[in-house]
Amino acid sequence: MSTAIKCDKTARVHGGTLGYYSHVSVKTGTTMRFTLFSPPEGKKSGGLVVFLSGLTCTEDNFTTKAGAYQQAAALGLSILAPDTSPRGEGVADDDAYDLGQGAGFYLNATQAPWAQHFQMESYLIEELIPQCEEKFDLDPNKKSIMGHSMGGHGALTLYFKYPDLFCSCSAFSPIVAPSQVPWGHKAFAAYIGDDQSAWKNHDACALVESAENASSNAEILIDQGLADDFLKEQLRPELFKDACAKAGQTLTLRLHEGYDHSYFFIQSFMDDHLAWHAKYMVP
Amino acid sequence: MSTAIKCDKTARVHGGTLGYYSHVSVKTGTTMRFTLFSPPEGKKSGGLVVFLSGLTCTEDNFTTKAGAYQQAAALGLSILAPDTSPRGEGVADDDAYDLGQGAGFYLNATQAPWAQHFQMESYLIEELIPQCEEKFDLDPNKKSIMGHSMGGHGALTLYFKYPDLFCSCSAFSPIVAPSQVPWGHKAFAAYIGDDQSAWKNHDACALVESAENASSNAEILIDQGLADDFLKEQLRPELFKDACAKAGQTLTLRLHEGYDHSYFFIQSFMDDHLAWHAKYMVP
Repeated sequence: MSTAIKCDKTARVHGGTLGYYSHVSVKTGTTMRFTLFSPPEGKKSGGLVVFLSGLTCTEDNFTTKAGAYQQAAALGLSILAPDTSPRGEGVADDDAYDLGQGAGFYLNATQAPWAQHFQMESYLIEELIPQCEEKFDLDPNKKSIMGHSMGGHGALTLYFKYPDLFCSCSAFSPIVAPSQVPWGHKAFAAYIGDDQSAWKNHDACALVESAENASSNAEILIDQGLADDFLKEQLRPELFKDACAKAGQTLTLRLHEGYDHSYFFIQSFMDDHLAWHAKYMVP
Repeated sequence: MSTAIKCDKTARVHGGTLGYYSHVSVKTGTTMRFTLFSPPEGKKSGGLVVFLSGLTCTEDNFTTKAGAYQQAAALGLSILAPDTSPRGEGVADDDAYDLGQGAGFYLNATQAPWAQHFQMESYLIEELIPQCEEKFDLDPNKKSIMGHSMGGHGALTLYFKYPDLFCSCSAFSPIVAPSQVPWGHKAFAAYIGDDQSAWKNHDACALVESAENASSNAEILIDQGLADDFLKEQLRPELFKDACAKAGQTLTLRLHEGYDHSYFFIQSFMDDHLAWHAKYMVP
């Protein structure tokens, strides 16, 4: 049994309430942390945006650096920012920044030693989101998902895998084709094994191409900086653009001169993303 | 001789450029770090805002957490965020968070061992600000100062001590009467000695009361959260309100229900402060 959500601290911000929370997850078998922003009282009709962070991040990177809460307050949006993996002394880890704790890739690992705790997909979809909807009195029909880098991968793949769950999806600098880039190769081989046919189920390019009704999805928004050090080797947004075109998935891909992979880039276009999601979460 | 300013990295944010810089200071005898935001090209006419941070902060706290650059870009403001003290292995320090490195109090220490490096007032006024004005081609007649907590103390005291230097001053949760509160007692006794008559030269309440022309100063803006744990013992804004009233210094003091001492509070009202300064920096 997962335990009740515990509030560790709160702060008022832009008229709303930001809370740091923790709970024991039955899916990961660990204590998981997240933050949730609730807009000012009387403004909760806007819906919930789930933001998934990138490699090395905790629940706090988005929370302190993304500059999202002014716009969220104005639009009446709640924002949920989970941690990027299970953590703790008994949890498998790796010395590299791109595997293990801080690098959960939002999937369910099937391989030892990762399978024991690294069940981020089930944790998010079956546990964290429904528990938050109940605890914070959120409308389950108004929910969208976005993320950055590894979290952009998470947002896109979960959007395609659970088409009835999310109204819309957007991403900053996402890993769109993990099966074809080093970050994905390394993580997928470790977490789900060497059989690459299983990787397609966690690859946004493969998922959109095999989707039955991609043309009925909401249009996806992706922002990508052109001064991003990871652009050519790890991110490759052109692969996703081609895959969307083939599948009939509408996509707005914006390329931004001079912007890098950091939260300075994210904060520069955050307002646009929140407005994008708000548009799709109207009842 | 202080060395040239070195650019350690830059990032584009909200159409402008954020730089992390370092230089060797002749005043502190150490390598000092700071950040400077420059608004988008063609928008530099708005002036320079200097932001002084609070206890324990580096140049990075404001930079990553204050959410200031969207509004700064819109108003054409540059923002300079210095570190809060000299740092390094050869620099005096104390185990407590409120003395030594990270706690420079924006004054020139006269007492051993602090006097050797803790010369933050001279560093800011005679070295950092003029060097930045030259390097970044900023108008020396359009400059304002603001800060948070210990940095609010710094902003207020430097505004009163250099009335011709800054067009305006504002603060979040400032230490307004260091001579009368524990943080100030401890720091001033260490840095400038037990003779409390010398403390008045670094105490905003004392400075405004002894100012010759306080009534000709720009109106000061102060925001204070009412859920701030330091409010009653360390901050005591009512003392400054009374001192301003006596001295003829105009003051807007806003008290905010539910807000604490964090950057979540600062980001909530940052836009107002930048607009306030922009108003006073019109040629």
